[in-house]
Amino acid sequence: MTASSHPGTTAGRTANSVAPQRLTVLGATGSIGESTLDLVGRNPERFDVVALSACRNAPRLAELAIRHRAKTAVIGDAEQYGVLCDLLSGTGIRAGCGPQALIEAAEEPADCVMASIVGAAGLAPTFAAARQGRRVALANKECLVSAGDVFLSEIERAGAELIPVDSEHSAAFQALAGSDRKALERIVLTASGGPFRTWDLDRLSRAAPEEALRHPNWSMGRKISIDSATMMNKGLEIIEAFHLFPVTAAQLDIVVHPQSVVHCLVFYTDGSVLAQLGPPDMRSPISYALSWPDRMATPVARLDLVKLATLTFEAPDEARFPALRVAREALARGGSAPCVLNAANEVAVEAFLDKRIGFLDIAAKVAATIEAADVRGMIKSLRSLDDVLAADGESRKLAQSLLQPHIANG
Amino acid sequence: MTASSHPGTTAGRTANSVAPQRLTVLGATGSIGESTLDLVGRNPERFDVVALSACRNAPRLAELAIRHRAKTAVIGDAEQYGVLCDLLSGTGIRAGCGPQALIEAAEEPADCVMASIVGAAGLAPTFAAARQGRRVALANKECLVSAGDVFLSEIERAGAELIPVDSEHSAAFQALAGSDRKALERIVLTASGGPFRTWDLDRLSRAAPEEALRHPNWSMGRKISIDSATMMNKGLEIIEAFHLFPVTAAQLDIVVHPQSVVHCLVFYTDGSVLAQLGPPDMRSPISYALSWPDRMATPVARLDLVKLATLTFEAPDEARFPALRVAREALARGGSAPCVLNAANEVAVEAFLDKRIGFLDIAAKVAATIEAADVRGMIKSLRSLDDVLAADGESRKLAQSLLQPHIANG
Repeated sequence: MTASSHPGTTAGRTANSVAPQRLTVLGATGSIGESTLDLVGRNPERFDVVALSACRNAPRLAELAIRHRAKTAVIGDAEQYGVLCDLLSGTGIRAGCGPQALIEAAEEPADCVMASIVGAAGLAPTFAAARQGRRVALANKECLVSAGDVFLSEIERAGAELIPVDSEHSAAFQALAGSDRKALERIVLTASGGPFRTWDLDRLSRAAPEEALRHPNWSMGRKISIDSATMMNKGLEIIEAFHLFPVTAAQLDIVVHPQSVVHCLVFYTDGSVLAQLGPPDMRSPISYALSWPDRMATPVARLDLVKLATLTFEAPDEARFPALRVAREALARGGSAPCVLNAANEVAVEAFLDKRIGFLDIAAKVAATIEAADVRGMIKSLRSLDDVLAADGESRKLAQSLLQPHIANG
Repeated sequence: MTASSHPGTTAGRTANSVAPQRLTVLGATGSIGESTLDLVGRNPERFDVVALSACRNAPRLAELAIRHRAKTAVIGDAEQYGVLCDLLSGTGIRAGCGPQALIEAAEEPADCVMASIVGAAGLAPTFAAARQGRRVALANKECLVSAGDVFLSEIERAGAELIPVDSEHSAAFQALAGSDRKALERIVLTASGGPFRTWDLDRLSRAAPEEALRHPNWSMGRKISIDSATMMNKGLEIIEAFHLFPVTAAQLDIVVHPQSVVHCLVFYTDGSVLAQLGPPDMRSPISYALSWPDRMATPVARLDLVKLATLTFEAPDEARFPALRVAREALARGGSAPCVLNAANEVAVEAFLDKRIGFLDIAAKVAATIEAADVRGMIKSLRSLDDVLAADGESRKLAQSLLQPHIANG
């Protein structure tokens, strides 16, 4: 046996030798969904599209469903159902609408479900996919941050495969593949540092939403861009990594890497470090989640190290970016604390975007919400999806009330 | 199945659950051999030392053999045999001497043979280990550079495992483990650039041996230090990688990375890149070759990215470092050309160290030797170890004669 044929090589299925992968995309019109379907469109022989869903963009959903010959298309917003039905009339594609139709779409026979619905709305359909024992390509943060243990129990019970789609977690997953996990010592997720990486506290206190929305490397949605500016995204990613990989919280670190080329580094007990690098194009981690343990060719730009020339690394500054610490504390507190963290953060980010609070207030309000939840006995262990949804809803209300103290108390 | 228990994980043997690994170290008193035995000394329960060999340092060989309770100790130099026998007298350790004893030591029942004899002297014993179907932890360059196809045939025929020890090739091997080799697009080996990375041609033409021996990152032998200064080491490594991994020569690249932290980058067709990083301590790749597919803990310093702060990459300059091009041409020419390259390089490096030729003459003399060998019909396919040894010897003579044109022709 030579190095070129050692057993570490995956002897998995090849693109040409097997039936197409039956794929459902939840959140088809979002950024991850569109990128997923871009790959599907480039490799039609590899995929058989089962169901597509969207929150409210019925025209785009219909267009994608027709182009990719989906069997089912489900729109979340009931008001858009008529539009969807009209557009799909005569195509043979079944139209559905509302939360129950979404769950049924997730349950349709498929090999892989891309779970890319943003926010708490993604919980129920992703749980449904997990319960069917599907491969779940996970792009929804809430399943791990808010529902961590509950979600993993469902995955385990159903024998489902959980493959992360987020670039940092996909990177960790790739850097762990084929290696001895008993020898795993530390996982270091990289952070771009966001648009405010070099700003001092005084300037941060006056940062405007439009400034926070200018992410240096990735083109992302508004909520996620603000999370990147506060570095709460890295706090949430630490919680996700804690659930995805066999590590303690102390074995998870963040390093600021402004070029966003290295996505994650995995340290082993032999002193060796495996890192995954790639251009800022989500089609690369998405393709890995779809094709794992194999890889499929993608048209993403190839990394040019000579052109990049310099990669830099620096320690994150928790004084200027307290969200990191707040998230770690929520993870340490356990139970529903990360769920409260996530809900409170969404409320606070919205308030910041509406200019109701300042930039530095975001992390402060999240921390205050967790404290208030603790005082009210709201931090408890979560046992079911219903528990998670209830905790999420209560936390949002609590966070809102803390943002408007006079109205809430008056 | 969750990410934390996916089948990419190697379900191999663990340190605690199995019998010790029977280990032979050929070249025990060299830098790789000493590092190997340092690891053995730290993990005595993991290893059972079978045979140790050394070229001529009998006192150190005896010391290591006694400390690690080897069964056999073989010295290459017959003049040192008496010293070795005296030192081992009464220990129960069998002493041997000379090329045949070396081969017999390599053939003693073992699970792994660390093949770390430098130069052509390592060929016969490493071949012997391969023929026994052992795991060959390969640190000897000649087996791949001079004997590539012949050596790989032996490995294949005997069902031996070939695991590279060289830091760049170990890095590639690690970055390929668990990944889909069909999707392998490119392997990029890094080069420190050596002590003359920033020197211009005029200054290079006057470079002295003592300047060339100052390697910026690694502490190495004299020959290897000069190879690093000319970048011939990277040319040889490209030839080795060509034999070790399922790539064409065109898929192998060099990037200059002065910090020597990233050892290799593997590019996949999905745009993803897996890289292996580590401190400049050979105990890390050595431990991997011994423990693969698992990893064992080592005391090597852990990488501190924040302290490193900056990693840089630049294109190699073949105008100033023509050895790279000369090596690529030898690989393209095939047959015995890489064997001539290696032999001529050893002769030229020795001449440079003796101040008989200038720094820039090294690559020029190597290229001239290959041309002269071609003219003389000496570039041919090699079918056996004897062919390789004959080609190596003839090439050295030819290279010597070209270094002394007046004596050789006069």
